[in-house]
Amino acid sequence: MPLTGQAARALIELRARIFTGRLRAGDRLAEIPLAEALGMSRTPIRLALSALQSEGLAVPAPGGGFAVRAFTVREVDDAVALRGQLEGMAARLVAEHGVSRGLSRRLHEALDQGDAALARGVLDEEALDAYGAMNTALHAAIAEAAGNAPLSRAIAAVEALPFASASALVPSPGSAPQRHRLLTFAHQQHHLLVEALEAGQGTRAEALAREHADNARRNLRLILDSGEAEGLAALITFSDAVA
Amino acid sequence: MPLTGQAARALIELRARIFTGRLRAGDRLAEIPLAEALGMSRTPIRLALSALQSEGLAVPAPGGGFAVRAFTVREVDDAVALRGQLEGMAARLVAEHGVSRGLSRRLHEALDQGDAALARGVLDEEALDAYGAMNTALHAAIAEAAGNAPLSRAIAAVEALPFASASALVPSPGSAPQRHRLLTFAHQQHHLLVEALEAGQGTRAEALAREHADNARRNLRLILDSGEAEGLAALITFSDAVA
Amino acid sequence: MPLTGQAARALIELRARIFTGRLRAGDRLAEIPLAEALGMSRTPIRLALSALQSEGLAVPAPGGGFAVRAFTVREVDDAVALRGQLEGMAARLVAEHGVSRGLSRRLHEALDQGDAALARGVLDEEALDAYGAMNTALHAAIAEAAGNAPLSRAIAAVEALPFASASALVPSPGSAPQRHRLLTFAHQQHHLLVEALEAGQGTRAEALAREHADNARRNLRLILDSGEAEGLAALITFSDAVA
Amino acid sequence: MPLTGQAARALIELRARIFTGRLRAGDRLAEIPLAEALGMSRTPIRLALSALQSEGLAVPAPGGGFAVRAFTVREVDDAVALRGQLEGMAARLVAEHGVSRGLSRRLHEALDQGDAALARGVLDEEALDAYGAMNTALHAAIAEAAGNAPLSRAIAAVEALPFASASALVPSPGSAPQRHRLLTFAHQQHHLLVEALEAGQGTRAEALAREHADNARRNLRLILDSGEAEGLAALITFSDAVA
Repeated sequence: MPLTGQAARALIELRARIFTGRLRAGDRLAEIPLAEALGMSRTPIRLALSALQSEGLAVPAPGGGFAVRAFTVREVDDAVALRGQLEGMAARLVAEHGVSRGLSRRLHEALDQGDAALARGVLDEEALDAYGAMNTALHAAIAEAAGNAPLSRAIAAVEALPFASASALVPSPGSAPQRHRLLTFAHQQHHLLVEALEAGQGTRAEALAREHADNARRNLRLILDSGEAEGLAALITFSDAVA
Repeated sequence: MPLTGQAARALIELRARIFTGRLRAGDRLAEIPLAEALGMSRTPIRLALSALQSEGLAVPAPGGGFAVRAFTVREVDDAVALRGQLEGMAARLVAEHGVSRGLSRRLHEALDQGDAALARGVLDEEALDAYGAMNTALHAAIAEAAGNAPLSRAIAAVEALPFASASALVPSPGSAPQRHRLLTFAHQQHHLLVEALEAGQGTRAEALAREHADNARRNLRLILDSGEAEGLAALITFSDAVA
Repeated sequence: MPLTGQAARALIELRARIFTGRLRAGDRLAEIPLAEALGMSRTPIRLALSALQSEGLAVPAPGGGFAVRAFTVREVDDAVALRGQLEGMAARLVAEHGVSRGLSRRLHEALDQGDAALARGVLDEEALDAYGAMNTALHAAIAEAAGNAPLSRAIAAVEALPFASASALVPSPGSAPQRHRLLTFAHQQHHLLVEALEAGQGTRAEALAREHADNARRNLRLILDSGEAEGLAALITFSDAVA
Repeated sequence: MPLTGQAARALIELRARIFTGRLRAGDRLAEIPLAEALGMSRTPIRLALSALQSEGLAVPAPGGGFAVRAFTVREVDDAVALRGQLEGMAARLVAEHGVSRGLSRRLHEALDQGDAALARGVLDEEALDAYGAMNTALHAAIAEAAGNAPLSRAIAAVEALPFASASALVPSPGSAPQRHRLLTFAHQQHHLLVEALEAGQGTRAEALAREHADNARRNLRLILDSGEAEGLAALITFSDAVA
């Protein structure tokens, strides 16, 4: 469940500190000092730490609480490539089995929602939230329709790795036009993917899903290459953007 | 570590009972009655139960001991397809990155060992053992050389599912010529795969690895379709054939 | 060689008449009446007819001159799909063999030229011309670098079919923003394709080249679905846009 | 139409001379001296020369008659790879569109005929002939069912190149067991391909058809590497084996 309010702000701040190196691998993440440092009560901190854990950025520490997990860009690249391979398989299976009427409706609803979110031209937080929810729903619908339980479990496992999730496009809100361009391209891929699924083109669907996953890798690299700490400070993922 | 002696025989017998339906999903697997039924001490039974668990055919039971795990042919098919997708990715990555001299040596040693095992024409237990060891080594070498840690973990996870492992070719020893034919075909795929890896042909390597995994699915189906309980009674996998 | 001036206008007009059905399959294309109808001398008409022939829209007629060739949307779809399959093979081979320094320079020059043409925001005829020249150069560089002579001949053969050429993106100049969007997407695919080629990712390069070819099919359909005869009247292809 | 009797023997002899280098690129192939050299009348020589031309080994010479066409192993490799790419596309399209009842019957008839030809264990000329006819029928059925006219033309064009045809498996009759092994493997690929087509697995069908075409390349290389002129002297292709 996406965080809101103070918990969301705590999560964004903690992620930014991890990326910028103010928090390093192994550093303790204790509720009380963090609550004081961020001027919040302990409850939103606790929610933020739990979210950090489920996205792979924090691990339980010996003696209780959490610590920052070590991860490298290489590790993110590998996980994203694996997600592409797995989501590609799901897309191929759906194309080969045929798209049911119910799935078709879900997919087109998602396409419409994405079109609407992008149509305003400016991606404010509401539009980003809408896009993020649509994105999660679209990916989940395809993975589920593939009907292969071990595959679904493998996708869930890879999504728990840092920045590997389909929802972790990590756009830098510092440059709104660039963000709009990235999402416009990504959503055009959604359109082509649905076209391929409905036309029964399994090879094409698999390739599109793989290429689509690669956006996450590329976007993370753009941010890291930019080196703009101030941009990083506002890092968000779609799944938990401030409402 | 492959079982030998009585433990191996216990494992084969338990697998056969699961396949033939004499043991059904949920049935308790308790050491003492099994030791009596099979005329063995408890130690080989304990080893066999542990092996059954690691290949996904037994699960810890509430109150201690094990129970037969429910699994369906569909589940095996799904897991095998997933393994093909994952091993295909590993093969593609190796072809794209290039084959190191050390890897090349390991691969050709494996090819030679497989050729030698098949050259005798008759697959006795020694030849089967040699083939099985070669097969495990070849698959492991490629997965490792891909250098993608999340991928390696995903392969390990799928190999823990019933009959999904690359070593679970499940040949029916009842028909030796058919078994020889199946392995000759599978090993010819190994040769083509190594050729593709060394030629840097990633697409081809991925496709060959996928198709190769499909042997496991097909072989299981052959056995199930044959319906010969007496053939099933001697089911073995390469990884733990009686030495 | 791209046509200019009156010959280019004659070609555009003749194509538009074929698409809108004012000229039908089998209709004679005789120089003198066409010169009168279009208010030109016979020389530009002759050049336009020759260009129509080389793009598969006119065939030599018994008794001399040309006639409109019958073709269907299905035929264009088939030819475009075949071109994607062939250009995909070329891209895969280049990725597998490795990109030479000279090829890399040619590819990046083309990417830069395309970026420059699109950067102005508005696609005037000069920008379209520049984009078209870049597009032809990029596709030719990859096909040539594949180093497979029968493949090159097969690509040339399919490019001679109506609207199947990589240069036949057929944008409707009636809607400039849509045209800009289509080319921005197509050129982003060029960027990804070059990235894949240089990273030695053959599978990815093949898939991107296939998907890229599919733009031609989609664009033609957009035009046909729009049913706007006035838009069709100004149909152009990049290879022979009015200078 | 396959040649028989003296014409077939003349064709085999001429091919062997080209492969072994007794006839070199550019050498004239004149009816009268060849008829004398081979101890035949001119009619079978004329038929053999015409067959040589249609398989790309002879070209019309200035001043009439034929000359040996220059070709290299590289050229054969390229053409075979292209055929694989094209037949792969056909197979993918058939899998995506679905296999009609009529096509299914044709495919299974072909599989049965191949099984029967191989079942005897020894491949005498009658069995080779039967296998060759089956092989041609199977490949043609798939190419035709793809329903893409430009693709069919491209396949026909590549089949006219030396040794690129699906019927040019070029087995060396000198080693009957090796020949049986090669065809057993190739026919197992036919079985898997039909399975993939009927299961709607387009990606798999494309990969199998590509890999299958690669047999031609590998077989030619085996012959060339063997360097056994006496084996080469009896080179045959299925399409025109002596009846």
